[in-house]
Amino acid sequence: MDYKTSDVPHMRLACKDVPLPKNMLEVGAFTETMAHLASAVCVASASEGEARHGRTITTAISLSTQPPSLLISITKETELARMVLKTRGFSLAFLAEDQQPVSDAFAGKSRLADRFLAGTWTQWPSGRPKLEGAATSLDCSLAGVIEMDTHYLFAGIPVASQITERKPLVWHRRGYHGLD
Amino acid sequence: MDYKTSDVPHMRLACKDVPLPKNMLEVGAFTETMAHLASAVCVASASEGEARHGRTITTAISLSTQPPSLLISITKETELARMVLKTRGFSLAFLAEDQQPVSDAFAGKSRLADRFLAGTWTQWPSGRPKLEGAATSLDCSLAGVIEMDTHYLFAGIPVASQITERKPLVWHRRGYHGLD
Repeated sequence: MDYKTSDVPHMRLACKDVPLPKNMLEVGAFTETMAHLASAVCVASASEGEARHGRTITTAISLSTQPPSLLISITKETELARMVLKTRGFSLAFLAEDQQPVSDAFAGKSRLADRFLAGTWTQWPSGRPKLEGAATSLDCSLAGVIEMDTHYLFAGIPVASQITERKPLVWHRRGYHGLD
Repeated sequence: MDYKTSDVPHMRLACKDVPLPKNMLEVGAFTETMAHLASAVCVASASEGEARHGRTITTAISLSTQPPSLLISITKETELARMVLKTRGFSLAFLAEDQQPVSDAFAGKSRLADRFLAGTWTQWPSGRPKLEGAATSLDCSLAGVIEMDTHYLFAGIPVASQITERKPLVWHRRGYHGLD
């Protein structure tokens, strides 16, 4: 793969340019509402040579089957976002229900340098990080970037995946859950 | 609210303009992989006067807290997408674990005209459809649109929400699940 920077469409969805509704939800009510949703727990990661970065996210959705693609949301001012943009790719590990310690580590309980000590990490053929024992894993080439004020939306095209029989870990009301 | 069409940023994320990776996942492998994720089951809906449209989706994520916003993905060539664009808003009902019949109806088991016979529907102050008994509900003003080849990504700013103690319905491996 030899993407040039100019090959990646890079856009801005300028919510702030839209007149905000006067009855917009307060931030506290919004975060409380979103905490009531159920979301798969996922570690998004990237690598460049020996350097690796990762972050626990609950914001990954299928995007299209033409081409097969998915979308993740990552906070902009992070080493992970910079590495995804620089290396034009990311990998995703949707955690199994026994991988709460991995989620905690990558959600910030471990320092950046120590996060990959949680769980057993190998590599995809691309070199990007691969978490052993995840419920579902994907390795993605970066296909597009949408720039928000605080987040990047990264569109990825999977180049490799692994599915297992493991049950997924779910985040709901600020706690971990498994499926019945 | 008196949004003009020009107030809504409308962009195209042209995945097809990006050179596709040679080792891209086959569509069948991709859909099988995505089926292994766990996703909250949600009915997205819109209304215009007496007319209502809705669709079951598993593609809703939090987008930002500045402003509070979320993102959903809707197939382009649908009455629902057209109504969201025309009326500049949509409502979301994240289903409770006992609302599988509502999910089935809005996933296509019922004809368009009959879908709102499943479940008990009232209205948000905006007039948009509100499903009683949902686990979590939001009413959103449209804040932005990203046009994909097959889907629209709609960014919404919540103007009302309702949370409950009900446990959410989750979609995983092509079946319904509750949380433990």
